Amino acid sequence: MQHRIVVVGAGFGGLEVVKDLAGAPVSITFIDRRNHHLFQPLLYQVATASLATSEIAWPIRSLVSDRPEVTTVLATVTGVDAGRRSVLLQDGQAVPYDTLVLATGARHAYFGHDEWEAFALGLKTLEDATTIRRRILLAFEQAERETDPLRQAALLTFVIVGAGPTGVEMAGTITELARDTLPREFRNIDTARARVVLIEAGARVLAGFPDELSDYALRSLRKLGVEVELGRAVSDCTADSVTYGDVRLPTKTIIWAAGVRASPAAEWLGAPADRAGRLEVMPDLTVPGHPEIFAVGDTVTVAGPNGKPVPGIAPAAKQEGKHVAAIIKARLAGKVEAMPFRYSHQGSLAQIGKRRAVIDFGRIRLRGALAWWLWGAAHIYFLIGSRARLSVAINWLWIHARNQRSARLITQGDAAEQSLGRQAEPPVSGRIG
Amino acid sequence: MQHRIVVVGAGFGGLEVVKDLAGAPVSITFIDRRNHHLFQPLLYQVATASLATSEIAWPIRSLVSDRPEVTTVLATVTGVDAGRRSVLLQDGQAVPYDTLVLATGARHAYFGHDEWEAFALGLKTLEDATTIRRRILLAFEQAERETDPLRQAALLTFVIVGAGPTGVEMAGTITELARDTLPREFRNIDTARARVVLIEAGARVLAGFPDELSDYALRSLRKLGVEVELGRAVSDCTADSVTYGDVRLPTKTIIWAAGVRASPAAEWLGAPADRAGRLEVMPDLTVPGHPEIFAVGDTVTVAGPNGKPVPGIAPAAKQEGKHVAAIIKARLAGKVEAMPFRYSHQGSLAQIGKRRAVIDFGRIRLRGALAWWLWGAAHIYFLIGSRARLSVAINWLWIHARNQRSARLITQGDAAEQSLGRQAEPPVSGRIG
Repeated sequence: MQHRIVVVGAGFGGLEVVKDLAGAPVSITFIDRRNHHLFQPLLYQVATASLATSEIAWPIRSLVSDRPEVTTVLATVTGVDAGRRSVLLQDGQAVPYDTLVLATGARHAYFGHDEWEAFALGLKTLEDATTIRRRILLAFEQAERETDPLRQAALLTFVIVGAGPTGVEMAGTITELARDTLPREFRNIDTARARVVLIEAGARVLAGFPDELSDYALRSLRKLGVEVELGRAVSDCTADSVTYGDVRLPTKTIIWAAGVRASPAAEWLGAPADRAGRLEVMPDLTVPGHPEIFAVGDTVTVAGPNGKPVPGIAPAAKQEGKHVAAIIKARLAGKVEAMPFRYSHQGSLAQIGKRRAVIDFGRIRLRGALAWWLWGAAHIYFLIGSRARLSVAINWLWIHARNQRSARLITQGDAAEQSLGRQAEPPVSGRIG
Repeated sequence: MQHRIVVVGAGFGGLEVVKDLAGAPVSITFIDRRNHHLFQPLLYQVATASLATSEIAWPIRSLVSDRPEVTTVLATVTGVDAGRRSVLLQDGQAVPYDTLVLATGARHAYFGHDEWEAFALGLKTLEDATTIRRRILLAFEQAERETDPLRQAALLTFVIVGAGPTGVEMAGTITELARDTLPREFRNIDTARARVVLIEAGARVLAGFPDELSDYALRSLRKLGVEVELGRAVSDCTADSVTYGDVRLPTKTIIWAAGVRASPAAEWLGAPADRAGRLEVMPDLTVPGHPEIFAVGDTVTVAGPNGKPVPGIAPAAKQEGKHVAAIIKARLAGKVEAMPFRYSHQGSLAQIGKRRAVIDFGRIRLRGALAWWLWGAAHIYFLIGSRARLSVAINWLWIHARNQRSARLITQGDAAEQSLGRQAEPPVSGRIG
């Protein structure tokens, strides 16, 4: 019988494993809770109405449709029975494997304050993105009709917690939405007056970048009008405010770009994990004591060349996926020598609003317009398929030429309610606070 | 003080009124429950994963951003106080008017069987469309994993009730999705075997068209593989079946394209209405006894030239909107002569799957590929803005060149749940039935 490989998770890491196993004499079961692969690096553009969901997500089935040996399964994994070598699904089914690859990713985390999750919106899924989009657009709608100046101010205050790439990109894009796209459309409020506050516990923004690029990013954000609060840890989030240091800032919109917590992969296996729940894998990305189980991407922690842990970014997950596929193929060919994973950092990119970005290629460091064009080209290049590339390019063209953002739709999202025909009312028609 | 006009509803009719009042010395309040104008004629393409929501919907504010005299209000209207001349909003506010235009549309109706609504999905809003899209895609996913042949057959049976343009277009597109787009992606089922059943109580499909075109549509649908059941009224809908005539057909997906019911505009005014709840307006589209209140579009019924009621289609709503704007401008100019509305039918179009359509221009009747190209050109022409036109054209190109449907995303839609971070599980992981 053919070697049975089960890959759980169709993010960058899992997809790479499946891709690189093309031609190998194996049967692959590709399991994900969702039917689509998501291009996470541009998710914030869906959250800010710049791109449509279908431009950064692809049905997993369509990505492997030319691979008869791959069976795609839309299901939720609830555990792993390492003894019986099978993956347990929520519907009670068990999927047997000879080799298992866990690429189950991470979700935003609240440093032990899960109660904040209801107020501080994370950004990991398409639903997260459309929820944030709706909340941002509704805040402007509610502010337009709000007569109480304090409530109006809170509605026009957007807080982003965490100044990593996602936080910086959200802050920049929301500011542009308010300054460039919306002003002419409202009669009672000046959307350009909206406050965008970026709160970071650390000493600088984009801490993963060299100081000079962090400084440039900080200057650019402030020039753009973003209020950057450094060295301030958030101590509370509520429906009406965020508290950091000794400041209690009234706001109706908090976006959480601070912490992440790994998927429960480590718990499934009873394997060692770090404080963020990341599986501590062996140098060859296998799980300690389980050479037949690999783990890649945001759900693992592994040391990079410089001793620092490999960063939780798409290129790292892809490299890990490639490495795992290579080991599996080597084993199938009867080779068994140890193959430690070696991460090579190709560079870090972050966009800081329109026509501004920073790129760190190690020796070469770029910033400003040139970096922004490279950032755009790189992201379009890494999208899947010419339709998405063309479509995203067109949207960006319209945004930059006309400040039009095509996806400014407030949809209730509550499909159940809709299919029951109850007409969804935007919260705006209720009182605020 | 300037003449105050309140327009309720930003569909084709309401939008046309606001557009045509450009330059008039009036102040306009433009109220809608949603933040977007929807291009209804292509909504079925969102429901069948052909187009993205942002390609057929535009923020109302952006459509009137260059009209300082227009104030857009996102709110739900709950009634009209004709005595005090004000529109009542759900949040308790009242919006005063000198002239009121009601363009509040219609919603699907179930011939007094509201209990069917939970099982027979209507198609009026973006949420309706994404719900149907999710249900169709999930049915295939569930069938792929279903071991019980009867349950599998029910999952692969798609029933459309009502063979008007929407029903015919849905039936054709779902068939193509199953035959052309999905087959290579599934391993356990042959999606091409999916049954698409179109049930019509009347004697023919596209009853609004001349016999010869109806016959052509019927032949085309059957050639495509659609099972068309004519002269059969649906007598029951449940979660697992639809009953028509003496047949009880097991199915997990019922799409309702049969009846519509007008918005409660007539109830708000205590005005006479027909059985479908449509306001019976005067020949000049005013409400009997209320020359200061106009009503247009799907929420009214008015006689056309041939004595037959004006059809509930976009061009008719637009013509009514133009007429109302003209009367308002005439009155502002001090002219008061009666101006009865005269509907001129420019033609009827319906697509029957790829490269097949019927067009009735009265004397000229077209069918087949030429009609299909005209149908496509006309719809792209009527979209708003070159971005949407370009984007839709690209998507159609990919569909027809490669059978790719870009928007095949199963999103839970339950944004509240998502923002609470609970991870949405696709129903597939539960048992079926």
